Amino acid sequence: MPDGAINLSEKFSKFSEYWSPKIIGQYNGNDLLLAKLKGEFVWHSHPDTDDFFHVLKGTLVIKLRDRDVKLEAGEVFVVPKGVEHCPVAEEECHVLVIEPRGTPNTGDEKTATKKVAI
Amino acid sequence: MPDGAINLSEKFSKFSEYWSPKIIGQYNGNDLLLAKLKGEFVWHSHPDTDDFFHVLKGTLVIKLRDRDVKLEAGEVFVVPKGVEHCPVAEEECHVLVIEPRGTPNTGDEKTATKKVAI
Repeated sequence: MPDGAINLSEKFSKFSEYWSPKIIGQYNGNDLLLAKLKGEFVWHSHPDTDDFFHVLKGTLVIKLRDRDVKLEAGEVFVVPKGVEHCPVAEEECHVLVIEPRGTPNTGDEKTATKKVAI
Repeated sequence: MPDGAINLSEKFSKFSEYWSPKIIGQYNGNDLLLAKLKGEFVWHSHPDTDDFFHVLKGTLVIKLRDRDVKLEAGEVFVVPKGVEHCPVAEEECHVLVIEPRGTPNTGDEKTATKKVAI
């Protein structure tokens, strides 16, 4: 774990893949994750956990079954546990995400991206 | 709980007190808190929880017993459970903090600031 400040811009400079969250720290058994998003992800839900999104750059639309939630940089949204959602970013978008350690990003371990620490 | 995006700048415009964290949302039983900091807080620790700080504006120094951790805007630090710390901001600083609901900000319920939702 880091001894000092975690600089998010510096961490973002270390990877370029989209939809591949990187672990930058821990909080009470949760992973602190950075991700670059572009395009449309898959519809999914997390039956056991809320999903915290903080947009740091760009625009993210989190589609829900009953509405779209549009997030600009400096905005936060928490997808409640069990709620189906599909993140979409027309242009590259940078987010800080918090999820319990081991949460599959697709909601399904079989299709999930392995999260690595950077 | 919010139906849409939580705009952090808009939330910060709603209060001016220092060292008085405001609840802006929830994540798995944790409060998402915004705080304005200026001056020196008190030395304290949280025996049961880590303490997540994300500096959004200004500079925050988190004094630990063995070192100081300096955080600029765009930087994150998690004070581990049980570790004594004292936040200090020479100039006004804005932070997003995450703590389990009900965590006393001073580490002691007798001296804690009541957290209200905005």
